[in-house]
Amino acid sequence: MFNPTLPARVGEYLALHQERFIADLCAYARFPSVSAQPKHKPDVQACAQWIANHANKAGLTSEIRQTAGNPIVLAKTPPRPGKRPHFLVYGHYDVQPAEPFDLWTTPPFDPQRRGNALYARGICDNKGQHLAHLHAVEAYLKTDTELPCDLTFVIEGEEEVGSDQLGPFLKKYRNELACKAVVISDTGIPSLKQPALTCALRGITAFEITVRGPNRDLHSGIFGGSVDNPALVLAEMLAKVRDSRGKIKVPGFYEGVMALKASDRKEMARLKIDPRKEARFLGVKELHGESGFSIMEQRGARPTFEINGLTSGYQGDGSKTIIPSWAKAKITCRLVPSQKPDKVRNQVAAFLKKIAPKTVEVTISPGHGGEAYYVSPDSAHAKAALRTLKAAFGHDPVLLREGGSIPIVNEIRKILGVDTLLLGLALPDDNAHSPNEKFDLECYRRGMQMSAMLWPELTAAFQK
Amino acid sequence: MFNPTLPARVGEYLALHQERFIADLCAYARFPSVSAQPKHKPDVQACAQWIANHANKAGLTSEIRQTAGNPIVLAKTPPRPGKRPHFLVYGHYDVQPAEPFDLWTTPPFDPQRRGNALYARGICDNKGQHLAHLHAVEAYLKTDTELPCDLTFVIEGEEEVGSDQLGPFLKKYRNELACKAVVISDTGIPSLKQPALTCALRGITAFEITVRGPNRDLHSGIFGGSVDNPALVLAEMLAKVRDSRGKIKVPGFYEGVMALKASDRKEMARLKIDPRKEARFLGVKELHGESGFSIMEQRGARPTFEINGLTSGYQGDGSKTIIPSWAKAKITCRLVPSQKPDKVRNQVAAFLKKIAPKTVEVTISPGHGGEAYYVSPDSAHAKAALRTLKAAFGHDPVLLREGGSIPIVNEIRKILGVDTLLLGLALPDDNAHSPNEKFDLECYRRGMQMSAMLWPELTAAFQK
Repeated sequence: MFNPTLPARVGEYLALHQERFIADLCAYARFPSVSAQPKHKPDVQACAQWIANHANKAGLTSEIRQTAGNPIVLAKTPPRPGKRPHFLVYGHYDVQPAEPFDLWTTPPFDPQRRGNALYARGICDNKGQHLAHLHAVEAYLKTDTELPCDLTFVIEGEEEVGSDQLGPFLKKYRNELACKAVVISDTGIPSLKQPALTCALRGITAFEITVRGPNRDLHSGIFGGSVDNPALVLAEMLAKVRDSRGKIKVPGFYEGVMALKASDRKEMARLKIDPRKEARFLGVKELHGESGFSIMEQRGARPTFEINGLTSGYQGDGSKTIIPSWAKAKITCRLVPSQKPDKVRNQVAAFLKKIAPKTVEVTISPGHGGEAYYVSPDSAHAKAALRTLKAAFGHDPVLLREGGSIPIVNEIRKILGVDTLLLGLALPDDNAHSPNEKFDLECYRRGMQMSAMLWPELTAAFQK
Repeated sequence: MFNPTLPARVGEYLALHQERFIADLCAYARFPSVSAQPKHKPDVQACAQWIANHANKAGLTSEIRQTAGNPIVLAKTPPRPGKRPHFLVYGHYDVQPAEPFDLWTTPPFDPQRRGNALYARGICDNKGQHLAHLHAVEAYLKTDTELPCDLTFVIEGEEEVGSDQLGPFLKKYRNELACKAVVISDTGIPSLKQPALTCALRGITAFEITVRGPNRDLHSGIFGGSVDNPALVLAEMLAKVRDSRGKIKVPGFYEGVMALKASDRKEMARLKIDPRKEARFLGVKELHGESGFSIMEQRGARPTFEINGLTSGYQGDGSKTIIPSWAKAKITCRLVPSQKPDKVRNQVAAFLKKIAPKTVEVTISPGHGGEAYYVSPDSAHAKAALRTLKAAFGHDPVLLREGGSIPIVNEIRKILGVDTLLLGLALPDDNAHSPNEKFDLECYRRGMQMSAMLWPELTAAFQK
């Protein structure tokens, strides 16, 4: 085991170009590449074009490959004679919706620097993170420093809506994309002093519940008292989903959930979250979760049932005295190994249909889904990553189980047969998916250094 | 007791001008005079101006009186020497919001005739109904037929948002508006064969519940499982409001509710609603209400708790994986004699605050309120109205307890000290407050005849 170092010219190049890298990221984040909203289709396309062009300028060779959905950008290091390990770097150029706009201090698609951070939708999730990798490779290529491996960047445009096209894409180009491992920076670190390898991710299953009552909104005076209220029925049904201890009451919901070993709980306990400080940070009087589990365990190793949105009846100014015709709830369940997204969704649907009264009609529309993920921290490649993290950040790294979902890591394992190293650069207060999303410039800088040091380490790990 | 008759010239005038009356109503309904929506302020003003002008053309003398809210239009029959009983006719020129627009067959503010009805927002509630009275008076004035009484039309612009200005207005002009009784057509009839005097109205109390959790929308992956979900908490709280028998569980909610006497239940039983037919009409599999009461009783004589709207989190296309920062429910409770709006709202607020978990902050914003109303059908003026109904519609009238609210009838009783005769012209399928609101042209015509015959009858009732 040797200590990772940054090749001098690469380090110098990265240092000299920091301001330009910031300008690059601002240009990239200016595209409102919101994959969930059809009106942003042209912005999504333009954004793909921008990152492809940028990779070319950095010295890679890029291509925009069309899919049945948004295009996927491939960018490769130049071909050289001889044989070297091949690695993929995955990222996504699409972003979450920015609503509600009025809660942003500065407009979500007009990146602004405040303090040591840049603010914009998607700047952290995920544009800044994969751009840091691209800058590191640029530093190798522009300084004629030899990269010990071949690299291909795979940058997709549908991560925020379920990465439907990436699986088929990996299958189609399975040979071209054959590799030793995949690197993804789309996860978080507790702080700049605690760089992290994320060894587990939660999965997800998304769906929408619609409760239909009368075939039109009804006057609540004329009919009220004799016709069931779909919004109240929806509330009553949702209220039956969890008990007072935070357990989900859907039969079978916890089937197959990987139990935590004592060693897992010990490792997770290394990361302390002060519940009072966390509550203050989030603006709540107290935290709340499934009883019997620590905060880290609740977030990383336990499944959830979350209402993401509620819609019914009149939502404008003042009041409208109606019995609404329908009520909807957008739901996502976070899943852990080894729950199956479709199975969980079907269990919830069956439960809701069973408890629905005869006065309404209940439908469940399936959304996207993805399984949870786990990679062993004892593998040579994980160890290489941990060494690199320590060198780049100057602190001992931690092992994280992250609560978010990157469904694609399972696809990668299934289709390409390799592990994914999750080396995220997001801080806990970066507001991913929230108003005022930001990306810390120190994370950006350390990320580039980490990437630059990672490739020799990772190459060595696979040559042992 | 004599049989009401229509003065020949008045009847002839009404018959001759039917088509013009329809055009008048269409012109009136073209104003989107939505009092709940600030953007429609200019339309509300223009609508008040139109009805004032129209009353002048009909031979009355009108004035637009400013208030702290929307103006109130007064229109009086011409002054004459001598003393006659004075009656008021009340109506409102403001309308409910028209949302959701996409459910309208034709645009809500472009009145269209289909079959024997006119379709537009507010055409039935309430523009068509008070316009019918105005046409009847026009017929007297234009044919020089002597009206046995003096009349003042009071047409306000805030009925759909709680009539806040009308109470102060009645107080301010108490002497000018002193009268024997008030006539309002803003209620319903079961059918053209069952004209009705509405002897009871439900009251209302409106409020909005806000459940606040984290100070921003949170990533449901990063934080999910450890932070309570305000939308789920709102659902759980709302689910505790009623039991499986349809009873409201808020302590004290039924305090003071006037019990139904056997005779009341008998009168209400005269009006049969076929539950299967009604369910089919409303598009539900089955009706639902408080157990132990008939449909008519549930609608007319029992209080309710109704969700009018739900709002939380992401409502756009696709999904957004967040824990929403807040969730809201718009609520109205229909009240019966002798519940007090403020008291009931406070009881509900206290209950909700008591059951709210510590993980969220719950606030209740009060909206408008109004007490329930009851008038004795045995009074001379009620009997006069019943006779007139029979003559105008050619059928025995029924006594109704209507589920809707006209808070102003209580204000009238309190301030002017008189009863209000509720002689509505709306059919059960007129879709008041719903898309595709309509007004039946036969109701319009009979309404004019009823009004024309009412004034001699009512005058006689007060001269006995």
